[in-house]
Amino acid sequence: MRIADLLLSTLDRVLPRPTVAHAHCDLPCGVYDPAQARIEAESVKACMEKFNGSDDSVFKERAVAIKEQRADLVKHHLWVLWTDYFKPEHLEKHPTLHQLFWTATKAAGETKKTTDTAVAQKLLDSIAEIDSIFWETKK
Amino acid sequence: MRIADLLLSTLDRVLPRPTVAHAHCDLPCGVYDPAQARIEAESVKACMEKFNGSDDSVFKERAVAIKEQRADLVKHHLWVLWTDYFKPEHLEKHPTLHQLFWTATKAAGETKKTTDTAVAQKLLDSIAEIDSIFWETKK
Amino acid sequence: MRIADLLLSTLDRVLPRPTVAHAHCDLPCGVYDPAQARIEAESVKACMEKFNGSDDSVFKERAVAIKEQRADLVKHHLWVLWTDYFKPEHLEKHPTLHQLFWTATKAAGETKKTTDTAVAQKLLDSIAEIDSIFWETKK
Amino acid sequence: MRIADLLLSTLDRVLPRPTVAHAHCDLPCGVYDPAQARIEAESVKACMEKFNGSDDSVFKERAVAIKEQRADLVKHHLWVLWTDYFKPEHLEKHPTLHQLFWTATKAAGETKKTTDTAVAQKLLDSIAEIDSIFWETKK
Amino acid sequence: MRIADLLLSTLDRVLPRPTVAHAHCDLPCGVYDPAQARIEAESVKACMEKFNGSDDSVFKERAVAIKEQRADLVKHHLWVLWTDYFKPEHLEKHPTLHQLFWTATKAAGETKKTTDTAVAQKLLDSIAEIDSIFWETKK
Amino acid sequence: MRIADLLLSTLDRVLPRPTVAHAHCDLPCGVYDPAQARIEAESVKACMEKFNGSDDSVFKERAVAIKEQRADLVKHHLWVLWTDYFKPEHLEKHPTLHQLFWTATKAAGETKKTTDTAVAQKLLDSIAEIDSIFWETKK
Repeated sequence: MRIADLLLSTLDRVLPRPTVAHAHCDLPCGVYDPAQARIEAESVKACMEKFNGSDDSVFKERAVAIKEQRADLVKHHLWVLWTDYFKPEHLEKHPTLHQLFWTATKAAGETKKTTDTAVAQKLLDSIAEIDSIFWETKK
Repeated sequence: MRIADLLLSTLDRVLPRPTVAHAHCDLPCGVYDPAQARIEAESVKACMEKFNGSDDSVFKERAVAIKEQRADLVKHHLWVLWTDYFKPEHLEKHPTLHQLFWTATKAAGETKKTTDTAVAQKLLDSIAEIDSIFWETKK
Repeated sequence: MRIADLLLSTLDRVLPRPTVAHAHCDLPCGVYDPAQARIEAESVKACMEKFNGSDDSVFKERAVAIKEQRADLVKHHLWVLWTDYFKPEHLEKHPTLHQLFWTATKAAGETKKTTDTAVAQKLLDSIAEIDSIFWETKK
Repeated sequence: MRIADLLLSTLDRVLPRPTVAHAHCDLPCGVYDPAQARIEAESVKACMEKFNGSDDSVFKERAVAIKEQRADLVKHHLWVLWTDYFKPEHLEKHPTLHQLFWTATKAAGETKKTTDTAVAQKLLDSIAEIDSIFWETKK
Repeated sequence: MRIADLLLSTLDRVLPRPTVAHAHCDLPCGVYDPAQARIEAESVKACMEKFNGSDDSVFKERAVAIKEQRADLVKHHLWVLWTDYFKPEHLEKHPTLHQLFWTATKAAGETKKTTDTAVAQKLLDSIAEIDSIFWETKK
Repeated sequence: MRIADLLLSTLDRVLPRPTVAHAHCDLPCGVYDPAQARIEAESVKACMEKFNGSDDSVFKERAVAIKEQRADLVKHHLWVLWTDYFKPEHLEKHPTLHQLFWTATKAAGETKKTTDTAVAQKLLDSIAEIDSIFWETKK
């Protein structure tokens, strides 16, 4: 655990947790949050680790099947952000937005086809990049 | 926005975002995060606000229908936390856990039947309480 | 209660198959029935038996995958009963209710991780216990 | 049929609640039960009654939406019985089987388009007829 | 590629694409199209081919799991056509309709249990037969 | 009906229907077809027409709710095409691809918020454009 994480985690305990959320339906209700994609992507990576660390064939089969479902959720959450949250003015300021989402959702698809955690990490990195742009637009 | 939120939000920008996530499938992959329930509950509340602020009957109908779905997701995420994440040792330390989840999931059900944001806020408060216990068990 | 209802209700006992059902949505429509959870749990157990009785690896894989889905349905139906059907007055009369549902839904989760039919039977026993309390509250 | 089955079957009639269930997936696990369709159809009818007995427009809207979903579940459960459970030898003995299921699933579709409980009752009657044939084939 | 396909494909480019579609919800909106079942059935067959052509056990497992889901979609689309689109007057003109749909949906179930592409082809042939009756009723 | 449609429709009868399909899962099985998005979009437009042509408030409510679901399916099918089917070499040849899919999926979102068939037609036009590029890449 990096020192920054530790610090943030400590602050998380001390400070009241934020209650502002960030919309994700098509009403639109206005609540979006890249955390939804990130949590599922962490699960994808964890499934790979569980798969690699086990020699029980049924367990490994289940890890593959659950990874498949979680990767689907990652794609869904990212697609929703791309189409529903981001607006032309965001694209103007972040011209790589389309390519970034394309790469990220393709990476989510790749995680279905492998148990190499590096692929899952690449997906998490793409989501982190999207997350950072997302919060910049929220300022 | 309370000063604490502002501070946390500022720290969020300065510090690298945490990359540790918290499992939620039944492998189990070990990734759980009450944020999933909270985001959907925020959406429920936002749907109510949109409903109350509009006089377009089709839009209001859509707000009710989407709120129904989001409240279902809140219940699902909470149920998963209760059954899958929490263990007997947590219950021992937090004997109100069962009652807390029962109240919270019942509150989620209540949000389907009303457009009173106070009911959604009560749900968000219950989730915040669960969230706080959750992170204490993670220490 | 109209005389016709009383008569129908009496006939229900005398005649082979009950036609009265018991609500399960969040309207609420008032129709609940633990049979929904039980049928899926029987399917979970049957999948284990099929798994154990076969040496065809593809068939065994399918049995595991279908068992996973059926166990999810068991959990869902039990959670709905717990949150939506049972009221504080029931809890007062049956103080073990929370623990019973926690144990039962955890047992459903366990059935995903094993092909030991004893685990599925334990789940069925928990559902039978819930079923018995349910029908007592219906008297 | 073994004597034990016969005995159990007789006890089923005498004792309050049956605990034997009957398979419904495509493994096939061998567990089917028309009760699944019947419970949802009861819910459809209850939604109509709630709709007719209320003058709260939001509540009525929710009753219509939930009815729609429950009717879909009725159709699904009936289709599964028709395609997965029933075999050519059953059809030979019950030549109206196809027509019966067609009528029943069409009736389920009709319940979406009306709040006339007579239509829901017609659906329940069709399901009762299917249920009776089903149990005859199980003897 | 057969010459007829080539011709049709060429005409497809030259002529404006048809904008008349063929309803499939229960409003009913009036849009139905057997292409939905056919596309999923092609996917089922392709999954078998991929399964048979690979010796990577994880890939083969995924092929089986995805085939299972696609076969479910085939069944769903066919059931919807049977119950929702076809009317008594169609049945009168095509008295084998019930049997045809029963056979086709049973064939879809069979494709879950095998990786023999002949079974998937039989399913595709049944869908082609349904498709041909469908378009005849549309004239 | 335009003369071209009539002609195509006639040719549809005369020529054998194409049996080549075009993959859409993440195995990948290799079967994709923009027809899936188009059929759902036609349903969206038909729901609007039904809505506009009726003065039965329950029917109109159902039309809105079903339209919402169908528009979701349009988005899903388009996202799958964008991420799963299209490759960097296609993007190179069709540099507007990203923008085209963004516009199309945003248009699908717009159809949820209106009952103006012009918006649905705009969506259908975008899908037709995607369809034309898709088939060009298939040559």
